Amino acid sequence: MNDKKVILYIAMSLDGYIAKPNDDLSFLSIVEKVGEDYGYSELLSQVDTIILGRKTYDWVMQLGELPYKDKNVYIITRTFRPNKGKIVFYSGNLTELIHNLKIQNEKNILCEGGAEIVNELLRKDLIDELIISIIPILVGKGIRLFDENRPEQLLKLISVKTFESGLIQLHYKRFNQDKLQ
Amino acid sequence: MNDKKVILYIAMSLDGYIAKPNDDLSFLSIVEKVGEDYGYSELLSQVDTIILGRKTYDWVMQLGELPYKDKNVYIITRTFRPNKGKIVFYSGNLTELIHNLKIQNEKNILCEGGAEIVNELLRKDLIDELIISIIPILVGKGIRLFDENRPEQLLKLISVKTFESGLIQLHYKRFNQDKLQ
Repeated sequence: MNDKKVILYIAMSLDGYIAKPNDDLSFLSIVEKVGEDYGYSELLSQVDTIILGRKTYDWVMQLGELPYKDKNVYIITRTFRPNKGKIVFYSGNLTELIHNLKIQNEKNILCEGGAEIVNELLRKDLIDELIISIIPILVGKGIRLFDENRPEQLLKLISVKTFESGLIQLHYKRFNQDKLQ
Repeated sequence: MNDKKVILYIAMSLDGYIAKPNDDLSFLSIVEKVGEDYGYSELLSQVDTIILGRKTYDWVMQLGELPYKDKNVYIITRTFRPNKGKIVFYSGNLTELIHNLKIQNEKNILCEGGAEIVNELLRKDLIDELIISIIPILVGKGIRLFDENRPEQLLKLISVKTFESGLIQLHYKRFNQDKLQ
């Protein structure tokens, strides 16, 4: 039943930031390359549900609209908002949500951030795989992907991909010592 | 003249920690493997000077002694201590020290931490190459390799090495847009 996975797909600088101060993502442009999507569209094809934090959602909507056609989207928020087409604003229990999605879904669940929801999912041990793209830069300050005070989690390396732009994509899965992998 | 480099060689967890609370480095044991030194002895052979932070030095000395035979060692400290054989305790200007070492030395300069001296060197733009080994674990809390408020620094990827243990070794050099590389 539960072969469906929650996958984190996100980019960070070598020093661990997903954005510079004031949500500045301009450093991502150093790896932008026509015809190179770093596995994103292939990943999207294996997914039927997207989970985003509310701040990330608002940030994306400021710039335009969500790029997820035909996907179910859950925006995790503390404050109630009415649903909007296939976009559900969710302020309930995260563990229950993931549990139910894994039963209902046909495909995987993708989380693309932001940091707050990533750390909340990690705290509840709800992320099955991490695909982290490391951008060749030290940005020096901003919003860190990983905040303080999460439980320890052993990982198993699945693959490493190196791209011409200098981006390195690390793919890990959760590793539980007490279970057969 | 200045073909000699300052190289940082250090390991961190995927979430960016070099130690868990209380200087606990036990997570490094998950990548320990007989006969695998992750390029360390080869690197040491290209180096004639080691730079360490004072806390790291005290920590190593608690466990035994420095493993650098025949190397010049500089311990960066705020408080004067008398020199000890080839170990110099240095509390002067870091930029001057590196400048002079690059003139006097025959080989490269290696920094192995800790976090405080790494960030100080980065703030002064004194690190030429970074060799960062990523351990397949999220440790959740502890001492971060990269602290807040450093200048932005573009990097150029030199190589990526993947090891059977799941350790990934990323090798970057400083990238200056205004200079030919």
